[in-house]
Amino acid sequence: MSANSAITKLDDLAKRLEAIEHAQSMLGVDEAVMMPTGGGEKRAEAMSTLAGMYHEMAGAPEIADLLAAAEAEPNDALMQAGLREWRREYTNLTCLSSDFVRRKVNAQMRAEQLWRELRPKGDWQGFLPAFEGLVEMTREEAGLRAEALGLDPYDALMEQFDPGNRAAEITPVFDELKVFLKDFVPEALAHQEEKLAKRPLKPLNAPFPIEKQKALGLAMMEAVGFDFDHGRLDTSHHPFCGGVPTDIRMTTRYTEGEFLTSLMGILHETGHGLYEQNRPADIAHWPHGRSRGMSVHESQSLFVEKQIARSAEFWEWAMPLVREHLGEEAIEGWELKDVLAHVHLIQRGLIRVDADEATYPLHVILRYEIEKDLVSGALEARDVPEAWDAKMREYLGLSTIDNMKDGPMQDVHWPSGAIGYFPSYTLGAVIAAQLWAAIERDTPDVREDMRQGRFVGLNDWRREHIWSQGSRYPTPELLERATGERFNAEHFITHLKQRYLG
Amino acid sequence: MSANSAITKLDDLAKRLEAIEHAQSMLGVDEAVMMPTGGGEKRAEAMSTLAGMYHEMAGAPEIADLLAAAEAEPNDALMQAGLREWRREYTNLTCLSSDFVRRKVNAQMRAEQLWRELRPKGDWQGFLPAFEGLVEMTREEAGLRAEALGLDPYDALMEQFDPGNRAAEITPVFDELKVFLKDFVPEALAHQEEKLAKRPLKPLNAPFPIEKQKALGLAMMEAVGFDFDHGRLDTSHHPFCGGVPTDIRMTTRYTEGEFLTSLMGILHETGHGLYEQNRPADIAHWPHGRSRGMSVHESQSLFVEKQIARSAEFWEWAMPLVREHLGEEAIEGWELKDVLAHVHLIQRGLIRVDADEATYPLHVILRYEIEKDLVSGALEARDVPEAWDAKMREYLGLSTIDNMKDGPMQDVHWPSGAIGYFPSYTLGAVIAAQLWAAIERDTPDVREDMRQGRFVGLNDWRREHIWSQGSRYPTPELLERATGERFNAEHFITHLKQRYLG
Repeated sequence: MSANSAITKLDDLAKRLEAIEHAQSMLGVDEAVMMPTGGGEKRAEAMSTLAGMYHEMAGAPEIADLLAAAEAEPNDALMQAGLREWRREYTNLTCLSSDFVRRKVNAQMRAEQLWRELRPKGDWQGFLPAFEGLVEMTREEAGLRAEALGLDPYDALMEQFDPGNRAAEITPVFDELKVFLKDFVPEALAHQEEKLAKRPLKPLNAPFPIEKQKALGLAMMEAVGFDFDHGRLDTSHHPFCGGVPTDIRMTTRYTEGEFLTSLMGILHETGHGLYEQNRPADIAHWPHGRSRGMSVHESQSLFVEKQIARSAEFWEWAMPLVREHLGEEAIEGWELKDVLAHVHLIQRGLIRVDADEATYPLHVILRYEIEKDLVSGALEARDVPEAWDAKMREYLGLSTIDNMKDGPMQDVHWPSGAIGYFPSYTLGAVIAAQLWAAIERDTPDVREDMRQGRFVGLNDWRREHIWSQGSRYPTPELLERATGERFNAEHFITHLKQRYLG
Repeated sequence: MSANSAITKLDDLAKRLEAIEHAQSMLGVDEAVMMPTGGGEKRAEAMSTLAGMYHEMAGAPEIADLLAAAEAEPNDALMQAGLREWRREYTNLTCLSSDFVRRKVNAQMRAEQLWRELRPKGDWQGFLPAFEGLVEMTREEAGLRAEALGLDPYDALMEQFDPGNRAAEITPVFDELKVFLKDFVPEALAHQEEKLAKRPLKPLNAPFPIEKQKALGLAMMEAVGFDFDHGRLDTSHHPFCGGVPTDIRMTTRYTEGEFLTSLMGILHETGHGLYEQNRPADIAHWPHGRSRGMSVHESQSLFVEKQIARSAEFWEWAMPLVREHLGEEAIEGWELKDVLAHVHLIQRGLIRVDADEATYPLHVILRYEIEKDLVSGALEARDVPEAWDAKMREYLGLSTIDNMKDGPMQDVHWPSGAIGYFPSYTLGAVIAAQLWAAIERDTPDVREDMRQGRFVGLNDWRREHIWSQGSRYPTPELLERATGERFNAEHFITHLKQRYLG
């Protein structure tokens, strides 16, 4: 078989897989935004059948031959990246036997169902047997993946979400961050208390009608670069960014009592949306045309939310826009520092998803440490509550020993079998800060641009260095090419100090 | 191969095809209701790829073996119907070569694009070469289908849309109707003029805010039996009824100046929706679980629109509902006869889609006669304008000889290659009247029920005799089982006389 015909066949297959993904993605959006309840059962059936068809097609044995034939020929660097990424995906997809996948899906479904039932009661003992089974399966899976990929077991799990990220590189960064944050959080809280004593937090002048909030959100999305010819904003119970690159479907939810949470949520999802809208279009159906893993994706949403939309410069531009859309009275008599007091508010809490950017990494590092130990066997499932509590007390001064619901039972990730995913969140925050530093180095006007509501320069830099690169490089190499540095905590730490001690 | 394993394999394939159809259907709805313009190109690509995959799967050669193996075994009557329908679909799908299908799709695309461009100008001469090519292809297709199905060429074309319908049975009914209508239309128009001279048409008190119109439409949909746990109503440029049986997506469009057109449109689509929502759920993925062809589908929409929602009894119940939703002033001082004057208004016109139920069949019969002659070769494409004009003058007293745009160029059907489809519209109207007569015979309370806003009895009858039957029987047999009569014009004629001469 000539490489040409192999690549043509792969290209044809990529288009078929893309069409199924297109359908899956849009059906998912429709389910969250439009579908009446009674449509759920049949929708789930259709989605599961499509997923099975996708899995069969993407894991077909002849793909191995096609890849081998294509790799044997001279290819340019871009096609080499495409084939490398395809092989990586193919290996990740096929390294588990169908029988193992079936057993694992069963174990996950059992654990997740049980978790949904028992979490409200915090019934850890009821949940434990299912969780033990899942940890056992995960260890087996990590072993199988490690063997197929030639990686350490935990790295092999992370490889599904963040190609190229290795615990050996992440652990020192997380350790540095942990040491820093243990002192920084109390310091920042004290600093905040002092400031709020002098100038108390101003209340928001609710209600804020949803239609007006939506118009404000749309205006900000458009300003930061979202392309409404290729996307839209709707409402759903759990906000997300879905769809396909040419048609990004973002959602949010609103409450009339407050507008900042929804607005920050919109801007967060807009970061995801910008990344997807600006992927390389001509290879969008190939593996190297995809966005690069979970931590880079999270870096893009956090870049817009934390680096842009919680900055003082952004709010210099945005306050008049808020007044224009929500009315003068919405934030009557507010100065810049009043809105910053809101969007920079930090506090210790038990719940990761509610945490601010200063405490959030501690929640993630806790999970990272525990799940690494679970995978290696250094920790058993039954000992998680004690480990969790000890770390919560050490990192955040809070105890969860009598509160499983808001302790180790708070997140869906482990019950659903997603072990190796948590680090992506904090890697994303760290990468966002590292990108910001690089942008500021390369284009010193960016802060002034933000004051004027100009985001083109920021977007051009990210388009060139991140968005247009798709999955050409593993995560660490992409970051190093973009910023000139390996992944490191320095810029994130600087960012936190400037924002919360300044 | 045992019949059991053949049927299991067919069942598995049916589920896969159903999942693709589910995706296609919902992507189509999303495109019309939600999609931003820029998403169109990639959506079209995904839809075309899915259609290709569907065609490959549904036309796979091994299906012939599976069907043969399954048919060779003893099956109950229901499974026999399932296999018969599957074989029919399979024969219809595979009786044209891939090469022919490609050529035909090209000819259709060329003709339809040209039609879109030239119709506004009424440029028949510019359109003619493409149309001639399409007629040539259609003759060839009809010949191929006729041979594969053992039918006459025109019947073989109709068989795609209405299994079992034959020109030999339709032509006498259409002829009877034509003779009747040529006299009836002038008579009904004179009768209407007389009535309007005594009591002029009352104007509608616009504007009618869209939100209020929507609430009224939803209330009526719910009253006539639409299940909102398995469907919803949205807005699109061209109203339609899409989705899947468990999740019916209906659309309409509104204008603030008038509410009756949109409301009647909603009720029309609701008729389609009720049919789909009430198909047999357990065999929904099998061919005999589908709705039975285009004329029966149209009979269900026309049943709700014409038989129910334009009846005096319906409006006795509905007028207070209109006042409740649109306000007392919407139809201030109106009596029942005033609303009936609106919903029974008839007039001669050039355009089929704008026609009322009295003149509509003449538009269809004209097309039926012309397209039969085109297929048989008795008429050439270039002679269509003269034939069209002669028939328009004869049937409706209107000439189109200088107006190609509103003459033979008015509909998308022929340019898109759908020849054999037009009769379904009037067959639907005739069947709706025939069903109504049977229901009134079986359940004499139905008119009183409507006065009270009770539609359960009407729905129970249709569920039992039509909806639940799926595609177990060919169209004529379904109708005969439901009503005890073969397809005939008598009840439709009675209906028109009662409504327009009464």
